[in-house]
Amino acid sequence: MSDDIRLDLEREARIGIAEAVFSAGKSTDQLARIIALDPARRRLFTRLAPEQVAALPTEAAERLCYDPLSRTAVMGGELPCLDPARVAIVAAGTSDLPIVAEIERTLAFHGENATHFLDCGVAGLWRLLEQQAAIGRHPVVIAVAGMEGALFSVLGGLVRGVLIAVPCAIGYGVADGGRAALHSALASCAPGITVVNIANGYGAACAALRVLGALDFRG
Amino acid sequence: MSDDIRLDLEREARIGIAEAVFSAGKSTDQLARIIALDPARRRLFTRLAPEQVAALPTEAAERLCYDPLSRTAVMGGELPCLDPARVAIVAAGTSDLPIVAEIERTLAFHGENATHFLDCGVAGLWRLLEQQAAIGRHPVVIAVAGMEGALFSVLGGLVRGVLIAVPCAIGYGVADGGRAALHSALASCAPGITVVNIANGYGAACAALRVLGALDFRG
Amino acid sequence: MSDDIRLDLEREARIGIAEAVFSAGKSTDQLARIIALDPARRRLFTRLAPEQVAALPTEAAERLCYDPLSRTAVMGGELPCLDPARVAIVAAGTSDLPIVAEIERTLAFHGENATHFLDCGVAGLWRLLEQQAAIGRHPVVIAVAGMEGALFSVLGGLVRGVLIAVPCAIGYGVADGGRAALHSALASCAPGITVVNIANGYGAACAALRVLGALDFRG
Amino acid sequence: MSDDIRLDLEREARIGIAEAVFSAGKSTDQLARIIALDPARRRLFTRLAPEQVAALPTEAAERLCYDPLSRTAVMGGELPCLDPARVAIVAAGTSDLPIVAEIERTLAFHGENATHFLDCGVAGLWRLLEQQAAIGRHPVVIAVAGMEGALFSVLGGLVRGVLIAVPCAIGYGVADGGRAALHSALASCAPGITVVNIANGYGAACAALRVLGALDFRG
Amino acid sequence: MSDDIRLDLEREARIGIAEAVFSAGKSTDQLARIIALDPARRRLFTRLAPEQVAALPTEAAERLCYDPLSRTAVMGGELPCLDPARVAIVAAGTSDLPIVAEIERTLAFHGENATHFLDCGVAGLWRLLEQQAAIGRHPVVIAVAGMEGALFSVLGGLVRGVLIAVPCAIGYGVADGGRAALHSALASCAPGITVVNIANGYGAACAALRVLGALDFRG
Amino acid sequence: MSDDIRLDLEREARIGIAEAVFSAGKSTDQLARIIALDPARRRLFTRLAPEQVAALPTEAAERLCYDPLSRTAVMGGELPCLDPARVAIVAAGTSDLPIVAEIERTLAFHGENATHFLDCGVAGLWRLLEQQAAIGRHPVVIAVAGMEGALFSVLGGLVRGVLIAVPCAIGYGVADGGRAALHSALASCAPGITVVNIANGYGAACAALRVLGALDFRG
Amino acid sequence: MSDDIRLDLEREARIGIAEAVFSAGKSTDQLARIIALDPARRRLFTRLAPEQVAALPTEAAERLCYDPLSRTAVMGGELPCLDPARVAIVAAGTSDLPIVAEIERTLAFHGENATHFLDCGVAGLWRLLEQQAAIGRHPVVIAVAGMEGALFSVLGGLVRGVLIAVPCAIGYGVADGGRAALHSALASCAPGITVVNIANGYGAACAALRVLGALDFRG
Amino acid sequence: MSDDIRLDLEREARIGIAEAVFSAGKSTDQLARIIALDPARRRLFTRLAPEQVAALPTEAAERLCYDPLSRTAVMGGELPCLDPARVAIVAAGTSDLPIVAEIERTLAFHGENATHFLDCGVAGLWRLLEQQAAIGRHPVVIAVAGMEGALFSVLGGLVRGVLIAVPCAIGYGVADGGRAALHSALASCAPGITVVNIANGYGAACAALRVLGALDFRG
Repeated sequence: MSDDIRLDLEREARIGIAEAVFSAGKSTDQLARIIALDPARRRLFTRLAPEQVAALPTEAAERLCYDPLSRTAVMGGELPCLDPARVAIVAAGTSDLPIVAEIERTLAFHGENATHFLDCGVAGLWRLLEQQAAIGRHPVVIAVAGMEGALFSVLGGLVRGVLIAVPCAIGYGVADGGRAALHSALASCAPGITVVNIANGYGAACAALRVLGALDFRG
Repeated sequence: MSDDIRLDLEREARIGIAEAVFSAGKSTDQLARIIALDPARRRLFTRLAPEQVAALPTEAAERLCYDPLSRTAVMGGELPCLDPARVAIVAAGTSDLPIVAEIERTLAFHGENATHFLDCGVAGLWRLLEQQAAIGRHPVVIAVAGMEGALFSVLGGLVRGVLIAVPCAIGYGVADGGRAALHSALASCAPGITVVNIANGYGAACAALRVLGALDFRG
Repeated sequence: MSDDIRLDLEREARIGIAEAVFSAGKSTDQLARIIALDPARRRLFTRLAPEQVAALPTEAAERLCYDPLSRTAVMGGELPCLDPARVAIVAAGTSDLPIVAEIERTLAFHGENATHFLDCGVAGLWRLLEQQAAIGRHPVVIAVAGMEGALFSVLGGLVRGVLIAVPCAIGYGVADGGRAALHSALASCAPGITVVNIANGYGAACAALRVLGALDFRG
Repeated sequence: MSDDIRLDLEREARIGIAEAVFSAGKSTDQLARIIALDPARRRLFTRLAPEQVAALPTEAAERLCYDPLSRTAVMGGELPCLDPARVAIVAAGTSDLPIVAEIERTLAFHGENATHFLDCGVAGLWRLLEQQAAIGRHPVVIAVAGMEGALFSVLGGLVRGVLIAVPCAIGYGVADGGRAALHSALASCAPGITVVNIANGYGAACAALRVLGALDFRG
Repeated sequence: MSDDIRLDLEREARIGIAEAVFSAGKSTDQLARIIALDPARRRLFTRLAPEQVAALPTEAAERLCYDPLSRTAVMGGELPCLDPARVAIVAAGTSDLPIVAEIERTLAFHGENATHFLDCGVAGLWRLLEQQAAIGRHPVVIAVAGMEGALFSVLGGLVRGVLIAVPCAIGYGVADGGRAALHSALASCAPGITVVNIANGYGAACAALRVLGALDFRG
Repeated sequence: MSDDIRLDLEREARIGIAEAVFSAGKSTDQLARIIALDPARRRLFTRLAPEQVAALPTEAAERLCYDPLSRTAVMGGELPCLDPARVAIVAAGTSDLPIVAEIERTLAFHGENATHFLDCGVAGLWRLLEQQAAIGRHPVVIAVAGMEGALFSVLGGLVRGVLIAVPCAIGYGVADGGRAALHSALASCAPGITVVNIANGYGAACAALRVLGALDFRG
Repeated sequence: MSDDIRLDLEREARIGIAEAVFSAGKSTDQLARIIALDPARRRLFTRLAPEQVAALPTEAAERLCYDPLSRTAVMGGELPCLDPARVAIVAAGTSDLPIVAEIERTLAFHGENATHFLDCGVAGLWRLLEQQAAIGRHPVVIAVAGMEGALFSVLGGLVRGVLIAVPCAIGYGVADGGRAALHSALASCAPGITVVNIANGYGAACAALRVLGALDFRG
Repeated sequence: MSDDIRLDLEREARIGIAEAVFSAGKSTDQLARIIALDPARRRLFTRLAPEQVAALPTEAAERLCYDPLSRTAVMGGELPCLDPARVAIVAAGTSDLPIVAEIERTLAFHGENATHFLDCGVAGLWRLLEQQAAIGRHPVVIAVAGMEGALFSVLGGLVRGVLIAVPCAIGYGVADGGRAALHSALASCAPGITVVNIANGYGAACAALRVLGALDFRG
């Protein structure tokens, strides 16, 4: 079966965000053909496993700037990022780092910096409270948490910025798969929290870009 | 048992959104005491059933401006809303109107106008496409849909503004309760859609207020 | 069909907690026969609806001290409660009051006082923090919360006493039925929180009684 | 334990579709015996993993025409397929290709051609709209999509042919396992969409064959 | 809030099926306005409760031909139906009659007859087997069953026509809500069964109309 | 940590069924100690993986009569089985053979024969109907089926013997894990079917032994 | 729509159990026609609500011997029941009485007595242990329990007879709907327990009748 | 991305329990840095896989006292444990040993002994009853059980101490993942049982420590 890959090349012009290549489940051949398609164009790959990169022909692999922690690759070079960062990423624990990294890489691909605040889990509330002012200086806050996701509600009562929750599949038993954290975010008693799919760091970054786009348009 | 109601009166100063009174399940006595607590203060009540209002003492009921469609009440007078509206509300069908109304009342309570675009379900795609430009002029778009929630993804590929999805419990069988629409919104192939709890019009409006707050701060 | 009711009269001697009559779904006839069974004995009824009490023969109803908020009834008189209270009940919002009342009535039936701290939801964190020292003076803390149940984790990081979480069915959408709060309590990042069934105020009070029994035995 | 394999050899005469061998979980020995059973008969194997084929005795393996993408094998030779194709296969993304291939192989086994339209995800709606006329020329349309499955509803409002939805397990979080796409297809606001099990390309092709059989019978 | 109802009037020209008015949850005012919108046009209402009809102004109610069993109403007159029927409706038990009626009314609205075969549950298999030939004479078969839905698979092995399964919420315990029957239909071992949402008689009829449309086009 | 294994050696005297060793998750050391515990005693091991047997010390492994298809081992020799068989095992497809084998091995361990009837899936109903009389001669019938489990209901309407359903995890999508077949068995429209856990061939055999024990006691 | 009711009148001859009329959801007209169908024949109605009986024409209602506790009706007279009872019904609590009554009425319809043992919940284990010998004298034991269903496993380790578990929807929170008790019965560590659907007293009685039929056949 | 690990070092002073390092998903580098952070401090690691330990640099690995059964490691030396033990651990079967070991190691890290009672599954009730007195001498009882978790309710009716249930993922089918045991514990008919997450031995030990802390404070 021949398959004619048709990327949505006009997406960036239309909605301000370029189409990323969701790489999970794609074969070596498919990935190589996508890389070859339009080599001068800047492009972001998400959910790209180290084994997939290792299996690529050298010529294709060399075009990618790959980061194993976030499982993302960038093709066509980085953009300079503006300072100071307009996005704060607040994470509950060290296990959330791969998602934090996916957010940062997606933002950087679009030329946005981020400041991260790690180990802010609410079991040691002081760690979050002592960063409250620094976090609050960013117009957009992305919160990353697994287990019971209590961080989302606590943050929602403390900061006035846009707040995007990324529930994660950290934990076991009823936390397995991330549903407990997802439902915590959706059912939060704090007003105005919005939510993306479990572990969807890419989506959270895109949502932040939509807000920053509105800021730029107005500013 | 005596119960001492403690409202979070400083919430508006802290995060820009006043505490609303979630009225579902509250007794007549509790509602009357909340109304009497600080009668000069403006206050929003959500999920307030007509039977609850009918049961209130006349003095308390007269303080409320009640809207049965949205099940909201406002105490202490309306604010003037600025024009043109900065929020577009796009709804799939007529059954979504109570949620649309809850969003509008919450925005109006905080002095924000909204434009609504109804009957935009994707089974008749032209209805959405002919409004695409008008919708796209708003920095924030709130989409309301039940059943399978395909509207969220289609909108996500058409507009560049901030996009907040409100899944609804319209439908039966696997759509019952709103989970099908919720999961559609979360799993969307369109980038940067954020989601609130099923039927949470209040929460979507608050999320929009957080974005508008960031715009105002910058602007 | 004749049915010979066999209560577990020795339960109190065996485990320190008397058998309570779970009244949901019981017919008027069954309730009347239980009340007549051993009228001198003190007895607690839970989940007893006002309609069930109204349907009882006068003679039976007069033996009950009924409280509609907690849906409990006591037969055979109250016990004096010792001061100061050894149990703190911390609740997120006003909607949790029926569960708080069920806990208090169950404790009082066994001669234990409780102090309650209401409206401690984490969206207004100061309300909890300003009560932290007072709560911490009790060897047993029972936390009651619906929606996303973030209160459990925040409390778990602040107090050193025994902490029992009672998730509630407050909320809608993914919070409907109480599963979101239940899973938050079970998946909490704070160590040593124990959990009872959704809305099981009676069970939480019994768990507290087991702890207090151990304290008395030692002391 | 001896096991006497009894295939349903008359199924094709009875309902127009030959029994296919569902190979997942079958042992090498069972597969070899099925291949040997009636070697002149044409037969289709589905869900046959490359490792299963590799483990077969050479004599058995040589009888199979195996396709690893679709995980199907055909025994007894191909049929010529009639032109023009009467089935259109519309897929949302490249990750759906294994299911597309299973559909095509099942149709081809029964002598039917198909035209495929790939990368039609609704986030880039133009890709679908520019193919609308070409798709609409087929009496049967099979739509393949994972994630939120919005493609089903959009197509349902655009084409008048028979529309069969195949939800796929593409995606993560709430999309994991394919339930989000399945529920989208079932709850669709577009009228007359029918659905098969998650990833059941074989079943969708059989459903198409039932329609084409009715066409042939009439025609 | 004013709401401007926008029906998809061109749907019939586009896909061969007119837009039906899904009436569940619509207010009296909304229904009356839809009835008044274009009174000469033929229109189908589904999920319309007797209480909704009773609440309509007389003028509006008189325009409707209402059937309480199927909860459907037709406006603008019936079409003559062609003989012989091209659709067979096979139902497991008497409790499925409301769904059978919804299917028949939807087909009749579009000018199609149906033959029904009731009480064909597989626990008394002879009832189905003795009708096998008569059922098989129809190019389209719609099967309606609740509980465990075994009827779908048995029929799928007996008839060669297009087979559309409508799972129903008949039963209790694990059958409650219709999920057991739905999953039976989707997971069937018989090839080529397609499925619509639980209790979606309207959708099954529309799917049949798509097939009949293809037959007419070809014939 | 020392652990003192305490088998329930009197179980056979008490309820007529010996304790079997559920081996899944047990370490090599634990298994070796159980084998050494009372080597003369006959004992049945279930859910014992080939890798577990391979890891045992030779002396321990030699005491076991291991069957990899059923993942069972017998220690202490086989019993002679009486003829004719009093249990019929009816299976839908070849993929159910491991469960069929677990049933047969458990019955044989207790001295009972079984007759099996394979490939009786209802999509080819004639295969079941032509065996109806032979199956019906057994006082106990165990039915094994995955996917949608329609076999259970069809059998339940055809035979008068005791009918025990064993749902299996054969299939994918909504059939994954065996819930669809389990719910079909529980929700069956045929009267008097009893059910055991998914894939619990051991439990079904034990249930049959309870019936046969009652027969022996009476006879 | 005319509907021709076709009862499965030969079911008793075929499998030893007469078809019962599942009355939930049936209209007054349907019930009246079933009663009139063959008035001399004995017939059992299950799930028949008091309101349904009250709505029947007098002539029809007088033919029924109705029992509101079990929601069953018998038409055509009772059979004498043999002594001593061959079925023991063991129930955890008073709330299980409606199910106990449905079992007894179904058995009595077929001429079988039952002995019941009530209030045997395991929280007061002595109540069960002191009845152990009396229960054990019956060849068939039906256990009825809601909440966590621990009764099933304890009984399974104590008695050697056939053991049929009927999980009930007694309880709230995670016990709501009966899933917790159902899963306890299916996952039991005690061997040879079989299970019927939640609250399916009729089905449990039919399963007992199948066993007693085998006993009679042998005896 | 640099990440600055911030442990909650004051947690022990605040709530009496030191922060443990949840090691699942942590990289070699992260673990090595945590070990190096403050090498003199005593620290507990949970959910630490043997492969993670094997991958550590020798210097780091040598600082850990690792136990593969419980998957825990202790750094900084053991504490002497007081006699007699104040915690009883009661387990249903041998498969629960890893959880039992995690409980013991967590208690020992805080200087508490435990007595364990293994193989107490209720299918052989005598094994539990003969230990009843010995178990009852401990002020805190932790019960560990998978499958249907009936042990929790039986124990709850026999002992008066604090009772903490740890449901486990032992079993298959509906027991898979541990939900059946979890729901049994939560829905128990025995009063005052508290529950922790599935397989959360660490959490159960911490809950016991909270009780013992209250005892020490009082004593």
